[in-house]
Amino acid sequence: MSSIDLSTMVLGYSISMPVMIAPTSRHKLANPSGDIATARAASTCNTIMVLSISSTCTLEEVAACCNAVRFFQLCVYKRRDITAKLVLRAENNGYKAIVLTGDSPRHGRREADIKNKIIIQELKNVEGLLSTKIVTDKGSNLDALANQTRDPSFTWEDIGWLKSITKLPILIKGVLTHEDALKALEVGAAGIIVSNHGGRQLDYCPPTISVLEEVVHAVGGKVPVFLDGGVRRGTDIFKAMALGAQAVLVGRPVLYGLAAKGENGVRRVLEMLKEELELTMALSGCSNVKEITRSHVRTKHDRQLLSLL
Amino acid sequence: MSSIDLSTMVLGYSISMPVMIAPTSRHKLANPSGDIATARAASTCNTIMVLSISSTCTLEEVAACCNAVRFFQLCVYKRRDITAKLVLRAENNGYKAIVLTGDSPRHGRREADIKNKIIIQELKNVEGLLSTKIVTDKGSNLDALANQTRDPSFTWEDIGWLKSITKLPILIKGVLTHEDALKALEVGAAGIIVSNHGGRQLDYCPPTISVLEEVVHAVGGKVPVFLDGGVRRGTDIFKAMALGAQAVLVGRPVLYGLAAKGENGVRRVLEMLKEELELTMALSGCSNVKEITRSHVRTKHDRQLLSLL
Amino acid sequence: MSSIDLSTMVLGYSISMPVMIAPTSRHKLANPSGDIATARAASTCNTIMVLSISSTCTLEEVAACCNAVRFFQLCVYKRRDITAKLVLRAENNGYKAIVLTGDSPRHGRREADIKNKIIIQELKNVEGLLSTKIVTDKGSNLDALANQTRDPSFTWEDIGWLKSITKLPILIKGVLTHEDALKALEVGAAGIIVSNHGGRQLDYCPPTISVLEEVVHAVGGKVPVFLDGGVRRGTDIFKAMALGAQAVLVGRPVLYGLAAKGENGVRRVLEMLKEELELTMALSGCSNVKEITRSHVRTKHDRQLLSLL
Amino acid sequence: MSSIDLSTMVLGYSISMPVMIAPTSRHKLANPSGDIATARAASTCNTIMVLSISSTCTLEEVAACCNAVRFFQLCVYKRRDITAKLVLRAENNGYKAIVLTGDSPRHGRREADIKNKIIIQELKNVEGLLSTKIVTDKGSNLDALANQTRDPSFTWEDIGWLKSITKLPILIKGVLTHEDALKALEVGAAGIIVSNHGGRQLDYCPPTISVLEEVVHAVGGKVPVFLDGGVRRGTDIFKAMALGAQAVLVGRPVLYGLAAKGENGVRRVLEMLKEELELTMALSGCSNVKEITRSHVRTKHDRQLLSLL
Repeated sequence: MSSIDLSTMVLGYSISMPVMIAPTSRHKLANPSGDIATARAASTCNTIMVLSISSTCTLEEVAACCNAVRFFQLCVYKRRDITAKLVLRAENNGYKAIVLTGDSPRHGRREADIKNKIIIQELKNVEGLLSTKIVTDKGSNLDALANQTRDPSFTWEDIGWLKSITKLPILIKGVLTHEDALKALEVGAAGIIVSNHGGRQLDYCPPTISVLEEVVHAVGGKVPVFLDGGVRRGTDIFKAMALGAQAVLVGRPVLYGLAAKGENGVRRVLEMLKEELELTMALSGCSNVKEITRSHVRTKHDRQLLSLL
Repeated sequence: MSSIDLSTMVLGYSISMPVMIAPTSRHKLANPSGDIATARAASTCNTIMVLSISSTCTLEEVAACCNAVRFFQLCVYKRRDITAKLVLRAENNGYKAIVLTGDSPRHGRREADIKNKIIIQELKNVEGLLSTKIVTDKGSNLDALANQTRDPSFTWEDIGWLKSITKLPILIKGVLTHEDALKALEVGAAGIIVSNHGGRQLDYCPPTISVLEEVVHAVGGKVPVFLDGGVRRGTDIFKAMALGAQAVLVGRPVLYGLAAKGENGVRRVLEMLKEELELTMALSGCSNVKEITRSHVRTKHDRQLLSLL
Repeated sequence: MSSIDLSTMVLGYSISMPVMIAPTSRHKLANPSGDIATARAASTCNTIMVLSISSTCTLEEVAACCNAVRFFQLCVYKRRDITAKLVLRAENNGYKAIVLTGDSPRHGRREADIKNKIIIQELKNVEGLLSTKIVTDKGSNLDALANQTRDPSFTWEDIGWLKSITKLPILIKGVLTHEDALKALEVGAAGIIVSNHGGRQLDYCPPTISVLEEVVHAVGGKVPVFLDGGVRRGTDIFKAMALGAQAVLVGRPVLYGLAAKGENGVRRVLEMLKEELELTMALSGCSNVKEITRSHVRTKHDRQLLSLL
Repeated sequence: MSSIDLSTMVLGYSISMPVMIAPTSRHKLANPSGDIATARAASTCNTIMVLSISSTCTLEEVAACCNAVRFFQLCVYKRRDITAKLVLRAENNGYKAIVLTGDSPRHGRREADIKNKIIIQELKNVEGLLSTKIVTDKGSNLDALANQTRDPSFTWEDIGWLKSITKLPILIKGVLTHEDALKALEVGAAGIIVSNHGGRQLDYCPPTISVLEEVVHAVGGKVPVFLDGGVRRGTDIFKAMALGAQAVLVGRPVLYGLAAKGENGVRRVLEMLKEELELTMALSGCSNVKEITRSHVRTKHDRQLLSLL
């Protein structure tokens, strides 16, 4: 254990650790520099940032500010022309993959948002394209906007259309079951992101770590599987890797770092996760990420199997 | 998921969602308009109200006030003539089914009622028919009334008598085991309501959701199975449907709505449940209630089976 | 369910319900009338009292005060002559069985007693027979007394000696495993009392209800099995009966009743347990104690078996 | 149960009970007499002390102060000459075994230490040998010291080197899995200490008692297995013995006793554990440590197996 190698391959890109930045909206709520600060931290830490379609900097601004590998997260709009334009802009600005959010045909009932009367900022990437006014006198109409603009009739089959307009690989985000994992494979996903949308779309969705292995088994190594949600410590990353994830995505911790100290805060969060993961690997006898195996963790599932031997 | 259809068939009646109003007594304790307010809300929301035998409006008053589909809940009295008259009145007033309460041969030991010295109002449906005076100087003698008037010797076999005096279909309420479900089928129940009487009859009765599937399996689709108890959210309804319920009954939430805002309050409670269920269905990929299947939920039972594969 | 019969046979004696009074020491700490008040309540309620060897009234006084069926609880002393005399006195005074405590070869480490510097009263049944003085200036030396006088070398084989000096049936109290249950059968016990000495002898002893069924299975109906410990409600008694107990013994609740209201308090405790059990039976469809069957309760054990079907 | 024999053999040495003193560092933080007080208490109680390499008295001072059987705990330094000298000194001073710590190739992230800015004392055993200064103005640099001096590249194979420089038996401390247990056997360990380093090296390590049996099964009786961690009561020792441990090691309780009352405090802690274990054995029918068997405890594992019969 004299040296530990955390480098990880994601869709052909080598990054410094198995941790990517999850797409989260409206970074300017956390810090005036917004998504640009986050992207710069990703670049410094040599990892991938997934820019949210609901970012508060345009995808062009983010692309111009740094040379991090960037993916672009997409919801499909009723007006396919808007979606198509966004994909083209992402391609033209060097984004390397599309992350398609599959778990938001409707906006979840977010009771904290309702209580707090959340006021949101304009969506820069679609400024002027949508007819619905987001900010009103009564606070936001985020809920209405989402439900009026997003296309709830978009189905697995329509991913063919998306593939027809771009050469970028498509990762499908929001998979929680083996059924959906197989569907994603069938329609040609280049990777699967196990996610419950940070627990904000539907109550009683299972914790992602609890269903990761079901998805990994269904996918059978055909494409990489990523874990989104619940990652707060290096040990969390280690567990996800042991259960078969290629890497994890972190959302809230990045926003906390951004809110606390801007770009430096995001960098510090990423560094802490890296240091903690490195230590966990050293103390578990893993000198690189490939050496993190299923036998390094034990689940309730394992213990029950054990009791039957 | 561009449109979600929540309409549900119950005994041949189409209602707007798989949610009915459970029989609960003495609505005037919650609001002076009593059961009439509740019935009107049921009518507005196009669902079924099960009127309690212990209602504080007469079954005639409730029938006159609205055109909701109504069922009538019955306990069997020692004096069968009283029971027979009630059934006849229900029939004559357009009630569409009898809901026979099977879990109250004796009144449960309700310690909160004892401590609070609950004072109750007259039972309008049986006014003048019972010799026991309900309201006394010392508070109520609800307990004594129930035990003196109800017929604890009523058994499965006696349901034949009930069938002989009415053409209305009979739903049996208070089933918690496969044994009782099979008995209910045998005596010709038109439907089964899994219920533990709101947890008020006997401590340590299992939560109804935990035994729903046992009953569903025993019934094998011969008659519809309904879930009563514990429904507070749209997700609760979704879970019950996934485990095989045809619809659910809600009791306390209706009373809370009634206490808060009368008829409007009940209507709002029903609307909220509907909105939440609709969202849950949309986010689970179910465009109508038939598409809610067993694979949409996972129980501890499932996880244990899984660990044996 | 028009009438419920709670009467129960114990060693050939018919009692009014499947509840007996467990042997507990020093009733005068709870009420100046001591064990006499308890015995009178047992008599009024037509149940069996097991008098503790450490009673604060002599076994003769208790025998003289009432006509309850009484059993006598025994620890074996190093001086067998003292033990033999006690057995003879019990026989002569109409005690119908010996309850041999098998789980106290040494006095448990009762930290509450140590902290509280408990002061105890003389043991009336052995007054003048023991050389160790119990009450000293520094509080009691209960611990020392127990360890100096009781015979820790008494083994299963020595029960033969006990049987040789008495015709009374011997119940063995303190059994928690199938191994000990089989031993008890082997040495000729007339009944087995599953007990962990109120949880006061050894930490981490299992709750008696959790091991009752193991003992019941081992005994296979050859002798009756009784449950001691943890009974606070009628539902507790019902559960024990469903898991195979012939009856239960109650200790602390009796002392609470005794402390609160003397003889009347004990009677009220017994009546409450009876009323609660009767209601539980009525609501579970059992018109007598024989109708309480294994299928009336479901344990975690059952649920796991179920998940394997 | 007239007399209970707690004596236990450890590597050929008879000790008064199956309890040894675990290696813990810096006893002078608890009491100015430091490790000497601890060693004297071990001697009085006739048990084995495992002296920590990070002791605040030199191994020579500890050896000179008492005639307890002593083992010496070792981490391997990058500078093998330092390690070799320590082993030689331990041998020359009558230490009877080497306890090799295998779970600290890197220093764990001890957040309490970081928050408290812990200030530590010099490591007396290696005074002058290490170039890194431990105590600085900013508090300690314990973390840096550990990571700079310990050899993270030390592997299972290198234990051959350790065996080549000493005739002392080597116990390997920090085993938690059957894989590591088999490795330890393979490289010739004379015994295995199941330990998670007091839970301070890596979060989510399992409690040692929960993996003890897995290790015991893997080892198959070829060498003794010891349990370290979590022992606070006589019942804890009894459980470990029942699950197959030869003896346990206690760390924190010894330090608590040392902090409270120096040598007398440590002695009292050891006596209390002994008294509690003796009572547990008496009440469980075990007259010596060999009679503590697997059937004396029941784990969740057992209960699950039971439910399958």
